[in-house]
Amino acid sequence: MPDKLTVVPLGGLGEIGKNMMALETPEDLILVDAGLMFPEEEMLGVDLVIPDVTYVEERLHKLRGILITHGHEDHTGALPYVLPKLALPNGRLPVVYCTRLTRGLIDVKLREHNLASQASVRVVQPGERVKLGRMTAEFVHITHSIPDSAALAIQTPVGLVFHTGDFKFDHTPIMGGPPDLSRIAELGRQGVVLLFSDSTYADTPGYTPSEQTISPALDQIMADAPGRVIVATFASLIARVQQVIDAAVKNNRRLFVTGRSMMDNVEMAIQQGYLNAPDNILASLDKMRKLPPERIAIVTTGAQGEPTSALVRMANRDHRHIEIQAGDTVVFSSSAIPGNEVLINRTIDNLYRLGANVLFSRIANVHVRGHAAQEELKLMIGLVKPKYFVPVHGEYRHLWMHSQLAQAMQIPREDVFILEDGDVLEIDKRGARVTGHTPADFVYVDGLAVGVDRIVLRDRKHLAGDGVIVAIVTMDKHTGKPIGRPDVVSRGFVEAEMSDGLMERARDVITQALSGAEHVADRSDFNTRVHDALARFLYDETRRRPMVLPVSVEV
Amino acid sequence: MPDKLTVVPLGGLGEIGKNMMALETPEDLILVDAGLMFPEEEMLGVDLVIPDVTYVEERLHKLRGILITHGHEDHTGALPYVLPKLALPNGRLPVVYCTRLTRGLIDVKLREHNLASQASVRVVQPGERVKLGRMTAEFVHITHSIPDSAALAIQTPVGLVFHTGDFKFDHTPIMGGPPDLSRIAELGRQGVVLLFSDSTYADTPGYTPSEQTISPALDQIMADAPGRVIVATFASLIARVQQVIDAAVKNNRRLFVTGRSMMDNVEMAIQQGYLNAPDNILASLDKMRKLPPERIAIVTTGAQGEPTSALVRMANRDHRHIEIQAGDTVVFSSSAIPGNEVLINRTIDNLYRLGANVLFSRIANVHVRGHAAQEELKLMIGLVKPKYFVPVHGEYRHLWMHSQLAQAMQIPREDVFILEDGDVLEIDKRGARVTGHTPADFVYVDGLAVGVDRIVLRDRKHLAGDGVIVAIVTMDKHTGKPIGRPDVVSRGFVEAEMSDGLMERARDVITQALSGAEHVADRSDFNTRVHDALARFLYDETRRRPMVLPVSVEV
Repeated sequence: MPDKLTVVPLGGLGEIGKNMMALETPEDLILVDAGLMFPEEEMLGVDLVIPDVTYVEERLHKLRGILITHGHEDHTGALPYVLPKLALPNGRLPVVYCTRLTRGLIDVKLREHNLASQASVRVVQPGERVKLGRMTAEFVHITHSIPDSAALAIQTPVGLVFHTGDFKFDHTPIMGGPPDLSRIAELGRQGVVLLFSDSTYADTPGYTPSEQTISPALDQIMADAPGRVIVATFASLIARVQQVIDAAVKNNRRLFVTGRSMMDNVEMAIQQGYLNAPDNILASLDKMRKLPPERIAIVTTGAQGEPTSALVRMANRDHRHIEIQAGDTVVFSSSAIPGNEVLINRTIDNLYRLGANVLFSRIANVHVRGHAAQEELKLMIGLVKPKYFVPVHGEYRHLWMHSQLAQAMQIPREDVFILEDGDVLEIDKRGARVTGHTPADFVYVDGLAVGVDRIVLRDRKHLAGDGVIVAIVTMDKHTGKPIGRPDVVSRGFVEAEMSDGLMERARDVITQALSGAEHVADRSDFNTRVHDALARFLYDETRRRPMVLPVSVEV
Repeated sequence: MPDKLTVVPLGGLGEIGKNMMALETPEDLILVDAGLMFPEEEMLGVDLVIPDVTYVEERLHKLRGILITHGHEDHTGALPYVLPKLALPNGRLPVVYCTRLTRGLIDVKLREHNLASQASVRVVQPGERVKLGRMTAEFVHITHSIPDSAALAIQTPVGLVFHTGDFKFDHTPIMGGPPDLSRIAELGRQGVVLLFSDSTYADTPGYTPSEQTISPALDQIMADAPGRVIVATFASLIARVQQVIDAAVKNNRRLFVTGRSMMDNVEMAIQQGYLNAPDNILASLDKMRKLPPERIAIVTTGAQGEPTSALVRMANRDHRHIEIQAGDTVVFSSSAIPGNEVLINRTIDNLYRLGANVLFSRIANVHVRGHAAQEELKLMIGLVKPKYFVPVHGEYRHLWMHSQLAQAMQIPREDVFILEDGDVLEIDKRGARVTGHTPADFVYVDGLAVGVDRIVLRDRKHLAGDGVIVAIVTMDKHTGKPIGRPDVVSRGFVEAEMSDGLMERARDVITQALSGAEHVADRSDFNTRVHDALARFLYDETRRRPMVLPVSVEV
């Protein structure tokens, strides 16, 4: 068999989150990351979106493992959903390889889904190599907004592939060492055939500042605030929690943790030695009453305005233990994920209404980005010096801008590939080319099950827009003629006051629609007549298009 | 009667858009602005939101007129909806007072709603005073992102009230003169009892740059672009259109206009002499084919990613005349209105996919804000020197920050009022105080009519989340017992594949729920039994909560 590498992004291109990449040779297949994505506005009622692993399911005999670059949900969160689908021919689940903190975070998720005993998650040290059939993968230490992040150097039959994972070059991180620049440079000198690089902030000029730069701001806020300081951030931003702990210690405040995922992650991170908290700094919420406000700091979830999060409950006066009061200072140590702006702004407004002072990254230096900006992206390309370049992680404009950076660094235009999810890129000794496209659609998780498709979402959108009207007609099964007056029930259509007269006339419209036919035995004829007449009538009257559901009852 | 002024904001506080303010004395009532707001995400199916004018309807006998500060939709757009509700006791509609361009824009709207002949819109010159019962209003020239913007100096029985309207201090505007600082200062010297001031950008430090600053960028883009230059902006941003015309002229490009509202406004602005376009610069779209791309500039709607706008049609390859091609440069000369980020980003991505280069304010100097930043807000307070201060136009956090600026300028805390819509502020010689709250809720416009209330929206949200299931039971009207097997119809709930088995079992659940009762004559008992049993069953099976609609047919 000729040496060949097939690359299939199953997520993470053209949209944010839901990262997954398949690397396939004639003998072996490995996956990089298994992320989930939170639904976009029009995915009504959907809880989560996960990658479509059909392509992998068709090749389970050669699946050698899943490599996870770091512990964020957009890289790990789909594991509980896809692992059961990816059982190997021997019945076992594929092995998940990752660094230690990442394993801790994955274990929390697997336990929630009762999968911890079946799954096999192996810790890999930075610098360590994992054999995956004829491929090997080395985890290379890199910096991001979560400790223990890794880039991957994957030896394949066509040469070395380097995948940055999510990264920024933070030379003074809060936790763990600086990125392993010398190893990356060494790999570059040895020759890298293909670079996948993080494009999330490819539209941002310059450098991303170090995480260190916000410590003085947090410190100052804790020193100056007249009352409690409540810091909201991502539950996975372990390093930020450390900064909050440090600022609290320095300013003689005790730290309280609230929000389920924040509590779980902090507990795990302390147990595993990632968080360094002096004795007696962390306290349980019931101890808060005994302390004066200026001795209290709180770290919480809810920085994205998530409706059920601890901070949003506080802002809505709905938190069981914490009531916002005048003198409180709330810090959003985060940036808005696009689409969440409205929820975040509403939360800020409500906190102000309750008398809190609110600080966020637009008006205070309380957050830095977690991803590389343009100069770092160029530095990565300069170190790795790949033959082929594929920008990953980001929406299309980010991939496009990242591809412009690569071309500015003398990678020929024909060696830069802007892929979209499902595109199949093949590399062999003759070169690299896109050879096709495989389904890599959104898979929607709603409630217990994966069981929402485009038709369900289309119907939800229709229902959301103008509501529903059900037309119930009783028919004589012998004559096929309506008996009595049709009934109608509507919801989400017009307000009660307007409804009565309209519904009476709608009943007449149905009667009339059926009066022409001698025998409406055919159900589809019945449906069409009632649907069309009613839809037309309601549109003429209201310029709205509710979903019309004709129901016939034969007696 | 003692001299008293009652201030009731009916819109424009605590949320963006939908501006309206009532100023009332014992004898007279005037309204300032009548804006609409575009619906927020959770206002499913709603087309527009307008102010609740119940308060004014109860006082029509003393309504003396509606003053409009400038021509933007969030200050004028509700006129076609509220004017008919505000007919005076003599049968006439209240007079609308505004500057000349504002009148032109209002007339376009009134004609659309066939109200042009009934309505009376009077042009007021800057400096001119209008008598409104015992009150008088002077229009004071100010700068904003639309020409002919006015602030209002309203003489009331308790003293002079100054309302800034939307403003920034642009000393070198593209059109019209600079703001009338000397008149504002003179009013301040005479003594202003109450200042209403624009808070939209109260969170932004420094000064807002002049509109002039973007001309060089537009000029450079037109000079450098290898092909067509397509500039998307707000249809009401007349001055920006002038800048695009000027840049096109300078670079020997002809200008094409697309998008219904852009075409209407450009035509009106040329007729009224606001836009200055050399002969032969504007061309109709059918002439475009005859010109080489580098001779073409296009100005279009769609800068907010509005789904049916011209630019979004281009991005979706759905525009009748303009097909995006490699070499095109698309400029978003705009900023994102919060909540529109996702739509805008999707449009940008699609334009990149089609091969266009895309420029927007984050990466090029192609837009400036239309509202005053903190230093200008302080300047306004410094000129007007009011006794009482009420921040207007903005969400709660903006009002809060603006109130902090006022306090920093030595207005005592007790003389600064952060109001919310419906709050009633009374001023008399004893002082100023909030005395109550009147309903000033959202009024939803959907389709032809105002006829959507909170219940309808709540139902739409429920339907949107998990769909609907209709349970149809035929009952014997004599025995009150079900006849045959119940039927179920669902939409937007689960995908067809999963649905069949589930629906069969749901039918059994309904039968069982009704089997206990001997005679289910009571409709509410029937509804409760079917609803609760089905809702519980479906939640247990799917963890979803579709809307359950029980329907009984008695035969």
